[in-house]
Parts: sequence; C-alpha cells; structure tokens
Amino acid sequence: MIRENQCYLNMNTIALITDFGLKDNFAGVIKGVCLKINPEASLIDISHGVLPQNILEASFLLLKSFSFFPGGTVFLVVVDPGVGSQRRALAVKTRNFYFVGPDNGVLWQSAAKDGIKKIISLTNKKYFLKEPSSTFHGRDIFAPCASYLSKGMDINKLGNSLNKIKSLCLPMASLENNRLSGEILYIDKFGNLVTNITKSQFLKFTKRRRFRLHIKSRVVNKIYSFYNQALSNNLFLCEGSFGFLEISLREKSAAALLRAKLKDKIIVKV
Amino acid sequence: MIRENQCYLNMNTIALITDFGLKDNFAGVIKGVCLKINPEASLIDISHGVLPQNILEASFLLLKSFSFFPGGTVFLVVVDPGVGSQRRALAVKTRNFYFVGPDNGVLWQSAAKDGIKKIISLTNKKYFLKEPSSTFHGRDIFAPCASYLSKGMDINKLGNSLNKIKSLCLPMASLENNRLSGEILYIDKFGNLVTNITKSQFLKFTKRRRFRLHIKSRVVNKIYSFYNQALSNNLFLCEGSFGFLEISLREKSAAALLRAKLKDKIIVKV
Amino acid sequence: MIRENQCYLNMNTIALITDFGLKDNFAGVIKGVCLKINPEASLIDISHGVLPQNILEASFLLLKSFSFFPGGTVFLVVVDPGVGSQRRALAVKTRNFYFVGPDNGVLWQSAAKDGIKKIISLTNKKYFLKEPSSTFHGRDIFAPCASYLSKGMDINKLGNSLNKIKSLCLPMASLENNRLSGEILYIDKFGNLVTNITKSQFLKFTKRRRFRLHIKSRVVNKIYSFYNQALSNNLFLCEGSFGFLEISLREKSAAALLRAKLKDKIIVKV
Repeated sequence: MIRENQCYLNMNTIALITDFGLKDNFAGVIKGVCLKINPEASLIDISHGVLPQNILEASFLLLKSFSFFPGGTVFLVVVDPGVGSQRRALAVKTRNFYFVGPDNGVLWQSAAKDGIKKIISLTNKKYFLKEPSSTFHGRDIFAPCASYLSKGMDINKLGNSLNKIKSLCLPMASLENNRLSGEILYIDKFGNLVTNITKSQFLKFTKRRRFRLHIKSRVVNKIYSFYNQALSNNLFLCEGSFGFLEISLREKSAAALLRAKLKDKIIVKV
Repeated sequence: MIRENQCYLNMNTIALITDFGLKDNFAGVIKGVCLKINPEASLIDISHGVLPQNILEASFLLLKSFSFFPGGTVFLVVVDPGVGSQRRALAVKTRNFYFVGPDNGVLWQSAAKDGIKKIISLTNKKYFLKEPSSTFHGRDIFAPCASYLSKGMDINKLGNSLNKIKSLCLPMASLENNRLSGEILYIDKFGNLVTNITKSQFLKFTKRRRFRLHIKSRVVNKIYSFYNQALSNNLFLCEGSFGFLEISLREKSAAALLRAKLKDKIIVKV
Repeated sequence: MIRENQCYLNMNTIALITDFGLKDNFAGVIKGVCLKINPEASLIDISHGVLPQNILEASFLLLKSFSFFPGGTVFLVVVDPGVGSQRRALAVKTRNFYFVGPDNGVLWQSAAKDGIKKIISLTNKKYFLKEPSSTFHGRDIFAPCASYLSKGMDINKLGNSLNKIKSLCLPMASLENNRLSGEILYIDKFGNLVTNITKSQFLKFTKRRRFRLHIKSRVVNKIYSFYNQALSNNLFLCEGSFGFLEISLREKSAAALLRAKLKDKIIVKV
C-alpha cells in the first residue's frame, strides 16, 4: 500500500503509452493538458510507437515497464480503437500505481499483477475538458483524469466504482507431446524476436540436453548468456531484458532474416 | 492578461515545434540550452516531425495545440528556411502565452488568435549564445530567449518593439455555385485526412440532406460521430479532434487508400 | 571545478544518448529507473536514433552536445555492443559534468575535452538494480548509477578508481600533396553531409582561392554563409552548427542526391 505522506512526494510521474506516433501533436497536447492541471508532473514517454490499435502490444509494453517506475506513477495508456463508442473509460488504483485508459483489456494484466485496489469508471464530467470530442478521449478525458490523480486527488471523485474490468492475457507457452510450443510476443527495434518462453520453462523442458527450436522452417540450436558470445550470422537464443527467451542475430536483425512477425509460432524439441 | 504573480508559478513550460526530427541532437541541444538558463523549465515536445521547412504545417500544429497548455507557456517554434538571412527573429507576448520563432508567418495565426500584446525583434545579443552560428538560430538565439522568458524576464529586454509580424493564414473553405470547396490541411499518422471544413460549415451547407464529397475521383457520402460506427473499407467523414471534418477509413489509412497529399482539393455537393 | 553548493542546484539533469530508437520501451524504462532514485531529475533525450551499435556516431553526438548543457549534467550513453561481456562499465567525472556508459570509447573524446577528474569502474552492486540482466545494462546498471550521481552522491561510492579508459577519436582531416583530405563524419536528417574539415582549416588551405571539393565523382565549388544564399539544385559548402563544413543542397537532401554515407572520402584542391 502507498502511504499517504509518501504519495504526495512521489506521485507526480505520468508515464505514457500510446499508438499516436511522434509526427502529430497528439502526445504533446496530452502533456499540455496534464501540465495545466498539475504543473509539477513529470511526463515520461514509455512508447508512442505501439502498432496502430494493437491492444496486445500496448499491454505487453505496459506489463514490462510499470514496475521500474516510482511508486505512485500514473500510467496513461491510450490505445483505443473503440473511442467514442460505449466502451468504458477507467482509472484503476493498484497496490503501488494508478492506471488510466480505455476498458479494452490493455490495463488488465499489469493492474492485476500489481494488485487491484479500486476500479473507477470515469464518468464525472467535472474532471474532463469542456466539450470532449468523440475521437480523442486521450486528450479530453484520460489526460485530465490522470493528471488529477498525479496531484494526489482521491480516485473516487472521478466516477463510479466498478467490480471488474475487461481482461486480456498475453498468450502462454504450452507443453504437449514432448514439445514446448510458443509464439512471438514482441519484436524490438534491433530485430530481436521476443518469445513467450521463459528461460526457466526452457531449462525445465530441455534439462540442458541438445535442443532444436523451429521457427519458419529454420532451426535454432544455440543458447547464450549475452550477444557477444554468438558467432556472426548464426541465430541464437538469449534471455532478453523482458524476461523471455529471444531469438537474436549478433549485430543484425533476426526479424529481417526470418521475415518474422508477431504471433509467428515456435516449437522446441529435444 | 496574465497576472504577474501567477506568471512566476506557471511560466516554466517551454513547448517545442520544429522540423528537426529526432535522429539528430538538435532538439536535445536546444533543451540543454534552455535548462542551462532556467533549470526549472519543463520542456515539452509538441512535434519535431514537421515536414522539412513546411511553415504552413508548423503553423497548423501550433494553432491546434497552444490553447491546451498552461498559461504562461513559451512556444518555441523553429521551422526556419530563412535562417541566417535578413528575416527577423521574434518573441511575441499574447494574452496568455509567449511565442518565439522566425518572422516567416509561422507564429502569426496562433498569436493573433490569442491576442497580441507585444512584438519584440530579438536583437539584444546579450541574451544569445556567444558567437551564434548562421545555420542554427534555434539553438543560439531562439532557445536562450525563450528560456529567459520562461523565467519571467521582461520581454522588452530582448530587443526592439515592432508593430507587426509577417502573417500567414491557413486556407479557408469556400461556398460557391452550390458547392462547398476545401482542401486537405493535414494528414495525421493514422492516415486521417484533415480537411479545412468545420462540421458547422458542413451542416449549414448540407442541411442534413444527402451529400457527396469528391476527392481524387472518389466519393464519400457517410458521416459518423466516431470511428467505430463505420463499416470496414468504407471511407467516411468524422469530426476530428482538430475541430475539422476528417476523411477516415476504419482501422486503416485513408491517405494510403487515396494516395492523398496536403492541399488536395475536395468538393462537397448536395 | 564544480563548486559543491552549485552542484546540488544544477545537478539534476540526466541527458541520454542511445541506439534504442523510440518504438520500444527501453528509453522510457531507463527514465523510470532514474526517477525512482531521483524524483527531481530532469530527463532529456539527446538522441535515441544512433545507428545500431555505432559507437563512433554516438561519440560524435555526445561531443557536439555536452557543452550546451548545465554544469553538473550526467550524460548517460548506452551504445553497447559488448553488453554482458567483460567490457567495463564506467562513470567519469570531468571538470563540469559526469559521463556514464560502457568502456568502449564512446565517452572518451567528450570527457577528455572537458578534462577528466576521476574514472570509476561501476562495480558496487549496491547501486545496481537487483539481479541485473545480461543484455540491458542501460536499465540495470548505467541508469541507477547515473541517477545516484544526479542526486549528488559521491562518485567514489560506485566502484573502484581507474587510471584510464578506452579511447576513440573522430577521424581528422589531413593535408598532403596540396590536397586537403577528409571524410563524412555525420549525416543529419536534412541530408546535410557533415565533413571533418573546419572552416578555419579550409580557409588556411584555400586562402580564398577558387577550390574544388571532390566527393563521389561530383565537384562542389561554392561556399556560403547560410542556406538561403545558395541556388536551388546546386551543391554548396556551409559552416554548419557542428563547427564543421557541411555539403548541402538548398531545401533538399545532399545525401540523397549523392547517395552518400558515413566515411565517404572527400578531397579539396585549389
């Protein structure tokens, strides 16, 4: 639990995840709205490069980021294909953080992991911008509500309490018929292919025997602790910073070599 | 009018619009210069993705952003094809804000909308970096002057007062021969085509009759309140967050489908 | 030397140079780690667009940026192809700044230019994140150490003192057989080709005589003070904001016209 005294000191970080990109003024305007309400807020971009309307990718980035931030951080997540429709707008208080965004599943896995304390449906128009648009709730509803939370305002003022939010889980690797089956969860900008297999799952399955990982008619059979151990032009596995095994190519893009994309299947055999 | 007391509290946001992109160190160095003068400044990127030297696009983004920022914000706009030539460097005080940038029209529409109180030609070299370059006034002249303003320094110290600045207006839609004619003002990263027709202009013209909007030999004849109402693969109109009608395609890029670009003409008939 | 009193006031800027790009959450997570340790830190992006693992490019951007920042700024540079291997992790105190990053040469030229006071090998695990990964020392080692420095913590606490760091120098132009020979050091986003020839070197060599600069079978023979003096579609030289001569094309990309790349050779004759 956040102690109240501590809150006021640390609560002024607002961290953003959107699919807005950086060419337009969308992210900047959201920050302006936040600063107008809380001039002390520290506004941090986690990513504005989520694939357009890809809720799963945003959910993954949030899950792999939130615990590194100061207690009391407000995560403002705007990946919102249903903007303007009846989908709910949410603020969630968890053990250590606040999460603000649409009720489309994007907040679920992170909020649940940290421990949900309170779910509020953002219905109190007093805390919206005047005359909210139908297409940019990030600016008109989510940003002002997030900023009031960053000032330490009681979350209950933002609307009605709810019992549950829409859930969305990242796909999990599975073990069946002596095969460990998974998929590509994320591709980073270096072209590393982030799988959904953890190193401990992998070691429990392979028991340090020789293995063959199949992806797109290629086989990977080496695992290293860090990139520099690998030979050039050979695909290898490495435990990446997301906590999952990644398929990598030293100083090159594994994604480009394999023409891999999100959700591509992988199978490990021993 | 900004009250002086309030100024000192809120005046430390500096918001940036440039065509520098994010690969180079230009925007970062400008922020370093600002922080060296005012360590309390909150530096916010509106966009560094303006098309190279496109004054009109920068003017549009500024106009559609400034009112969302806290009173006293200094807008630092560096889209400056005439850098080094005789074009003037400006600081403009308006009812609620400050605008700093070249005198090429980019500041005009926003400053005029907020209400111009004072125009200063930046001539006092005391507030420039030492030995300013001929190619990067953003760093050497505009950034330090903006940062002194963000600290609350009197704008009159920066140079001589002027009576007017170069004007530049966004093109307006026009009604003639029973046609409403406009053009594409802006294309956002989702591929929505922002027209220069407001919803009220449109409704006044169509009086809710059936309409046909012509663009590049295609016809759009639907208007919705938000994206999710539309069918896939059908172009439609929607009032976007910039306050203009936009031509959109649900979860896809209208710009890509139409191969549209800035200034493409549109005609609405009933 | 930084005076101690002054330090505490100015020392809270952390400026970042990485090759992480902006799609992933890497830079954002680093900022979260920094703010968790020092909530007062001002986090400034110099560039996250360094070419993957290009130590020389990062070194150039750092060298051309650091002096514009407030005294006491901590420069956090993560271009780190050897992450996880035996390469050392460093914090360097110079006359006015701190530099934190891998010991692969990237910090050398800037630190040496400012005057190195102290070199520390980051070995004190107390200041790392718990259980550091093998692939993301930026998050797990460099960011927390940089943030402790930004709070004013004594650099000696971070590890053992070293006598020297790996050096890496930008290539210098040379004069031989009546030719001034150089190369392309950097290409900015406008397509200006930054050479390693300074204007004073150039003037000392040409003595204001007619000159011919050869690059990729093209000849450039004009030099201007600023871009607007040039004719369209004619390559010209101009002293750029990096302090070197640049090969430019007015309102277009010289790099695209010449299909130029880093390290392309140039020769000046009179």
